[in-house]
Amino acid sequence: MAAKNPTACLLVIGNEVLSGRTRDANIQFLATGLGNLGIPLREVRVIPDVAETIISTVNEVRPKFDYVFTTGGIGPTHDDITSECVAAAFGVAWEPHPIAWPRMEAAFKPGDFNAARQRMATMPRGATLIENSMSVAPGFQIGNVYVMAGVPKIMQSMFEWLAPRLEGGQKIEMRSVHALGLPEGVIAEGLGEVQKRFPDLDIGSYPFYRASGNGVALVAKGPDAKAAEAAIAEITRLIESFGRQPIPGEPPDL
Amino acid sequence: MAAKNPTACLLVIGNEVLSGRTRDANIQFLATGLGNLGIPLREVRVIPDVAETIISTVNEVRPKFDYVFTTGGIGPTHDDITSECVAAAFGVAWEPHPIAWPRMEAAFKPGDFNAARQRMATMPRGATLIENSMSVAPGFQIGNVYVMAGVPKIMQSMFEWLAPRLEGGQKIEMRSVHALGLPEGVIAEGLGEVQKRFPDLDIGSYPFYRASGNGVALVAKGPDAKAAEAAIAEITRLIESFGRQPIPGEPPDL
Repeated sequence: MAAKNPTACLLVIGNEVLSGRTRDANIQFLATGLGNLGIPLREVRVIPDVAETIISTVNEVRPKFDYVFTTGGIGPTHDDITSECVAAAFGVAWEPHPIAWPRMEAAFKPGDFNAARQRMATMPRGATLIENSMSVAPGFQIGNVYVMAGVPKIMQSMFEWLAPRLEGGQKIEMRSVHALGLPEGVIAEGLGEVQKRFPDLDIGSYPFYRASGNGVALVAKGPDAKAAEAAIAEITRLIESFGRQPIPGEPPDL
Repeated sequence: MAAKNPTACLLVIGNEVLSGRTRDANIQFLATGLGNLGIPLREVRVIPDVAETIISTVNEVRPKFDYVFTTGGIGPTHDDITSECVAAAFGVAWEPHPIAWPRMEAAFKPGDFNAARQRMATMPRGATLIENSMSVAPGFQIGNVYVMAGVPKIMQSMFEWLAPRLEGGQKIEMRSVHALGLPEGVIAEGLGEVQKRFPDLDIGSYPFYRASGNGVALVAKGPDAKAAEAAIAEITRLIESFGRQPIPGEPPDL
């Protein structure tokens, strides 16, 4: 991992993931999208809709990472408290946003821009908007904190708008090979030797159990594509040395 | 949420979730399983295979929650460092486990219990085993920290063994209703009133966008099933008051 790449932390805010009601869909999308921008995601926290938890967590992570992204809690209901908590974390007023408020007011029929919807146009003072094509309600940025919707399609639309505006680093390249019927415990020692020869790569070993067969996937990641390819070539020979068939890439999903 | 219920934190340890390679499958399983035991999951952290991060995170969360569960990083490869990091966090020796070591040694052919596999039988001094039916390598418990595999099937087998041995609380009951074509911003104010009348429940509102239609799902959670049912009955009448059809339960998955 290039030390100079900016780092990111994601806060998934919402009781629905912690209760098991919802299987989070945002972590993998953002991990992949940020990796492509050369902004490795270094930590994720899933936290509940509890004001003191949101405020203290935002303030704990924003000095530790270059970017902090949040998903969830910016809708119109009583449990949507992310926006006011981010204002409290930054110690600024939570007030009608000069662009979002008139735009949302105009988007509804007279009388329909009610108190609940007005909360979605109320933001920390100084916030700039994160636009999206799905909903009239925007996300926002303040400092290094990027506040996005929790609904995956809206979050993805916000991130697509945001991505070209983020300052990234070297893209993280990923190369892989897998083999059926090869126990991790057999290849582990040789794999550790490959890791030592490529200290700038993250080399990972992931056993899989699929209807199509059990085996192990080996992945090399880092900013240098040539190094990742060279490491995978060594691992390919290692697999062959144990009499197994190396198969390029990741195993099938099922 | 009953204040007397024990609380849990989950640490998902592994670069593969942070890189986007793998979509985590363990959070939802454990959130649901722990909720059924009356042990609400209050926080999840996804952290990389970095020793200082694992050690400091374990030590940060173990005094804050009744239970800490970890998944990942207990295999035989160079990036499997959870076990030794937990030993370091507790300040105890990391040494051959008196039960796991001879059992694993006996499970392999002479010579096959190699250095990599020996690491899976090496644990913090004083750890007790968490058994599973999938693999000869167990997880372990030390203090209030429960260390499990990252491979979902093995983790699930470990949790099934563990569940009847955990001291839980009142089960968290969940009831729900949904409606098509009802904007969250319309129902939000009335929903907030229902939340105020049922302060011991968590009432959540979750918009959905499905091929079968868009709408909003309303969920009431808490230890008192009758209260959850009464709140959902009020929300059902609220939906009707806006001329929409309340549909019991959650919306279909697609």
